[in-house]
Amino acid sequence: MPIETLSTTRSHGGTQGVYKHASTVTGTDMTFAVFVPDHEPGAKLPVLWYLSGLTCTHANVMEKGEYRAACAKHGVIFIAPDTSPRGEGVPDDPDAAWDFGLGAGFYVDATEEPWAKNYRMRSYVEDELPSLVLRNFASADLTRQAITGHSMGGHGALTIGLRNQDRFRSVSAFSPIVAPQQCPWGEKALGNYLGENRENWRAYDACTLLSMGLRVPDLLVDQGEADNFLAEQLKTHLLVEACEAAGQKAEIRMQPGYDHSYYFISTFLAEHVAWHAERLKA
Amino acid sequence: MPIETLSTTRSHGGTQGVYKHASTVTGTDMTFAVFVPDHEPGAKLPVLWYLSGLTCTHANVMEKGEYRAACAKHGVIFIAPDTSPRGEGVPDDPDAAWDFGLGAGFYVDATEEPWAKNYRMRSYVEDELPSLVLRNFASADLTRQAITGHSMGGHGALTIGLRNQDRFRSVSAFSPIVAPQQCPWGEKALGNYLGENRENWRAYDACTLLSMGLRVPDLLVDQGEADNFLAEQLKTHLLVEACEAAGQKAEIRMQPGYDHSYYFISTFLAEHVAWHAERLKA
Repeated sequence: MPIETLSTTRSHGGTQGVYKHASTVTGTDMTFAVFVPDHEPGAKLPVLWYLSGLTCTHANVMEKGEYRAACAKHGVIFIAPDTSPRGEGVPDDPDAAWDFGLGAGFYVDATEEPWAKNYRMRSYVEDELPSLVLRNFASADLTRQAITGHSMGGHGALTIGLRNQDRFRSVSAFSPIVAPQQCPWGEKALGNYLGENRENWRAYDACTLLSMGLRVPDLLVDQGEADNFLAEQLKTHLLVEACEAAGQKAEIRMQPGYDHSYYFISTFLAEHVAWHAERLKA
Repeated sequence: MPIETLSTTRSHGGTQGVYKHASTVTGTDMTFAVFVPDHEPGAKLPVLWYLSGLTCTHANVMEKGEYRAACAKHGVIFIAPDTSPRGEGVPDDPDAAWDFGLGAGFYVDATEEPWAKNYRMRSYVEDELPSLVLRNFASADLTRQAITGHSMGGHGALTIGLRNQDRFRSVSAFSPIVAPQQCPWGEKALGNYLGENRENWRAYDACTLLSMGLRVPDLLVDQGEADNFLAEQLKTHLLVEACEAAGQKAEIRMQPGYDHSYYFISTFLAEHVAWHAERLKA
């Protein structure tokens, strides 16, 4: 699995790189971003995965996330995958809506046509990309991983974290979709990618996974109170209730005045990096 | 001079706003960005101006600059103007080149046609915008101002700072054009905006202003050594020599590995904010 280096740029005492490879899982080229802090030769650094939200690529958080200073300070590698397969022949929402199809892979393995061939972001993020990183980034210590994400990517971080509780020492999220079975974004995406049988949706719903007994070692969530999507799509209170019912250790913080944008994420992402670093180095 | 609020967003414990107004100086609408940290009612905060480089608007540094955490910590208002007049009827480079015309006002008052009517970014930044800020931002303390900028905006910060040494307590720059009379970007812009008589260019050349006896209270410059524009356009060594010849207090730092991009600026902008804050609060 060779990878192509699209760019490397010095920033905040480390290297921000962008890479491309032919994915066997999605059947397309995939692009991802990796920030590696300067380190001693031979040193191994823990890895924080960041999953992006609807409409995003690897680039949004790379440009606007303000994570590099914290990652350099704490010695954490930061990896941001794309949010869907892209390219010629990859089907998109028939109406080109921004909440489904391109830029909206929802971190599921689609089973329905025409999505099943390319839309396999669960396997891509859970299996193929970590394997690729292991082979190509000598400083990445995949025995110490954490995961975070925003909105649809917060949903991805929560569900991937819950389904792989031995792999991630800590999980966090910004304004996550906590119960896609109970909101329009989730119902549209899961219905199209997985079909109408809602039994098949359960593995992709954080609140349901908690109710089924899955846990993460530790959980931190930030949610802006001025987020336009809070009431209809995100429904943070369902996660609060699910964590309480499940006895899941969690800190879920409502942030007054903050919205859904990177102006919010960038305010708290350095704090999340530090929080993960503490657990990755414990 | 009424201003229109285009957006306000909570970020890093403050408010990032974008505003528009009809400029009498440029004869166009002008857009600018202001970050105001949270503060006690009635408090007055010092102001740091940031002038952007070629092709930029107010938005580039607002999205990629990573200045808000430092401004909130130090209690500094951060103002980013646009780089040129824009809109219907504003002339552009005949070849639509990115180094002249729209996005490339060079912080001069043009005297030549067809530029003289709209391209008056010197008067806009030196006079009209400060006056507008004074009337519309009650917390802005214009008795305590500092100025910085990037590339063409570094040239702007240096020349505006030198020509107004009683107004700015400190001046800094990222990869500035230090001698526009001696580089292709500067010769094109000054030749077109001001005409071929190079005597009229002298007020817009930092090295020349230093040789004419103008000074700033204190100067900090960061320049990436991997900057593709260093040798032909930026010529940092000319500023080093001019400061030495003039006895101008200055710290001019060459940063190994860094390029001309916001990955470089964002690495050091928080440090510049802290450096200015120290002088603004002295």
